[in-house]
Amino acid sequence: MSLTILDAIKQRKSVSKYQKDAVLDHSTLNELIRLAGCSPSAYNLQNWHFIAVISDEGKALLKAAAFGQPQVETAAATFIVCGQVQAHKTLQKRLSPSVKAGTIPADIANAWVAAASRSHEGNFQLQHEEAIRSGSLAAMTLMYAAQGMGLASGAMGGFDAEQIKKHFPLGDDDIPVMLITVGIPEKNNWPQKERRPVEEILTLA
Amino acid sequence: MSLTILDAIKQRKSVSKYQKDAVLDHSTLNELIRLAGCSPSAYNLQNWHFIAVISDEGKALLKAAAFGQPQVETAAATFIVCGQVQAHKTLQKRLSPSVKAGTIPADIANAWVAAASRSHEGNFQLQHEEAIRSGSLAAMTLMYAAQGMGLASGAMGGFDAEQIKKHFPLGDDDIPVMLITVGIPEKNNWPQKERRPVEEILTLA
Repeated sequence: MSLTILDAIKQRKSVSKYQKDAVLDHSTLNELIRLAGCSPSAYNLQNWHFIAVISDEGKALLKAAAFGQPQVETAAATFIVCGQVQAHKTLQKRLSPSVKAGTIPADIANAWVAAASRSHEGNFQLQHEEAIRSGSLAAMTLMYAAQGMGLASGAMGGFDAEQIKKHFPLGDDDIPVMLITVGIPEKNNWPQKERRPVEEILTLA
Repeated sequence: MSLTILDAIKQRKSVSKYQKDAVLDHSTLNELIRLAGCSPSAYNLQNWHFIAVISDEGKALLKAAAFGQPQVETAAATFIVCGQVQAHKTLQKRLSPSVKAGTIPADIANAWVAAASRSHEGNFQLQHEEAIRSGSLAAMTLMYAAQGMGLASGAMGGFDAEQIKKHFPLGDDDIPVMLITVGIPEKNNWPQKERRPVEEILTLA
């Protein structure tokens, strides 16, 4: 694969029609998530968790939770991208490999842990927003990773969070942020949609 | 530039030390934001707005709003990535180029406008979350776009939103989601930080 990053960004489109018999093996699922986990997060919280729904039973339950949207069943996998609201409590542990590797000085790691604890503890709004932010950053990387591996993807925001929490192994502090379908596209997907002109979305200051 | 998407994901790291005399010309700023705008969003809402802070005066104000973090001043540009909470009200207009181009059938565009209006109108929590989601997706693409153009980037979540709203030309329905510094890196930035193992962040279902 030699798709450049700039071409990937220009060419990516959201897919909803997949070849329904395609299967992603475990090493492909692992690699997709290893790459998604390379995304940035505040304090390197890495406050994300991905549930790859690949079983027939899981797909049926997720389709129902996603208001019947058929691509959940036809995609090879649909990832429930979760953000985590209590990650500040495990930050020390999550930074410790970087401290051991010499990437983050120990005193700075300790300062981050203190700062994250100070800002996040008891601030449910910030915890929730940070979970959505980190989950969304990782979801975007997951889509590019899929594209780089010759796969198509589609992000879905329409789902019943309560049903997802009920039927899937989310952790206590996981909140579902987005669903990402991944698979082999059919030929009859829509082309890339038009975008707002740059002058409408960019302001210099 | 021939950096592949997979290598970009593997190699990207957050930079905080920039060559302070580097300047990004307007065509580079435009291209970065044109690419960021290729990101996906619910209903293709494209509910984002980017403020490129490039002036000395703007940088000084933004540095103060970002609790003195020096990279806001040394980066060639810092983008205030905003999400928009009222985008459902302009969705018809935003979809119309895709309808005209034949990318989205008119009846489906109308159905999306109705659905977005139904779910978003009066639901301030959803509006706010959707703004963070879309802003974060676009922020991630912006970082990869910078990388593809030979630049470095760094995401920053620590800032005073009220000061940003006071000093910069945010629209009435813009909320600042993240700051993204972009520029030419110095040689003494930290290496990429360690990540959690895949088995800790991926669950199959």
